[in-house]
Amino acid sequence: MLEYIKDPAMIERKSFEIIAEKLDGKLSHLGSIEQNIIKRVVHCSGNLDLWDKLNFSEDFFESFLSFLRYKTVYTDVNMVKSGINKKIIPELQVYCFIDEPEIAELSKEQKISRAYLSMQKALRANPGIFVIGNAPTALFKLLESTEKLFIIGVPVGFVGAAQSKELLVGSVHSYVTLSGTFGGSNIAAAIMNALLKEAYNAAIR
Amino acid sequence: MLEYIKDPAMIERKSFEIIAEKLDGKLSHLGSIEQNIIKRVVHCSGNLDLWDKLNFSEDFFESFLSFLRYKTVYTDVNMVKSGINKKIIPELQVYCFIDEPEIAELSKEQKISRAYLSMQKALRANPGIFVIGNAPTALFKLLESTEKLFIIGVPVGFVGAAQSKELLVGSVHSYVTLSGTFGGSNIAAAIMNALLKEAYNAAIR
Repeated sequence: MLEYIKDPAMIERKSFEIIAEKLDGKLSHLGSIEQNIIKRVVHCSGNLDLWDKLNFSEDFFESFLSFLRYKTVYTDVNMVKSGINKKIIPELQVYCFIDEPEIAELSKEQKISRAYLSMQKALRANPGIFVIGNAPTALFKLLESTEKLFIIGVPVGFVGAAQSKELLVGSVHSYVTLSGTFGGSNIAAAIMNALLKEAYNAAIR
Repeated sequence: MLEYIKDPAMIERKSFEIIAEKLDGKLSHLGSIEQNIIKRVVHCSGNLDLWDKLNFSEDFFESFLSFLRYKTVYTDVNMVKSGINKKIIPELQVYCFIDEPEIAELSKEQKISRAYLSMQKALRANPGIFVIGNAPTALFKLLESTEKLFIIGVPVGFVGAAQSKELLVGSVHSYVTLSGTFGGSNIAAAIMNALLKEAYNAAIR
């Protein structure tokens, strides 16, 4: 028989002990919320090299809390939606428009990505939090907004991802982002879940 | 106005051109299916360093095709399920048991991860393809099977992930896996989608 830990609480504890051992010395100049987010990103990707690649706007947590009041979240892809932990704040409504027939039709007609069109639709809807884990075009669309948004912006890949995230850092918006080609729906969901936990903890303190 | 590509077909083409430029020289000793899978993994993670971290059992594609006849897939987490492209083979049934009340109850009672218990349930059900993108305990559970399985095994993290994937490579099972702490639901879904496309292409050739 194989010997391994099956208790999920023990696995999580041990995992964060290992991450803390590797990273705590490097992160001590950061606030505890930033540190927790970075550790969650490393945890979900198994990639320790990501520790110095996150960027936070100065007001990111205040802005997150203020947009959280709308209890509305828009994601670019279903994997991000699926990765958001619904147990932390059960009233939260998470929307992803990418599979809607009208979006597919428009996309075919106009040769514009479905993620872009989904964000166009979201920007016309009620205010909310934006979580982009896949498509640079979704983030580019949000960057055109002149109203200040809160964006978790970690699109991935070799065409537009690095550029869109650089522009996010120089924008009017509040954000958490990751530099370079790295990103993905797992990282987007991990950042969102870390922020939700911090918001929950802040509310019950 | 920002200048960027909005046409999804052009983005994908350009992205794979960039990846090919960086990797083709390094991958030429591999078969075309392996090369395509590696490129999909790099594409979905934005991480070029993953190119030499994939491992394939000798019979992986034949075994994949043979289990695909059951049209049944089991995933450890919902993000993997959500990331599998349902358009390639529409009859495919994808199951994830992690949110079932009976699994949650057992997990609480026995202090065993829900992913482990989900695989225990899947192993008792009809044969199918296993896609593990998150939990080492799910892969450990599959490794206990004496019947040969087909497993996409890319659990992530610092507790058990590397070890479970090493054991997979030495096991009786057919597999695609990734060494070390790296992994994740995005990578699991990317490997599965690459294999589905190859199967589709093989069938229409």
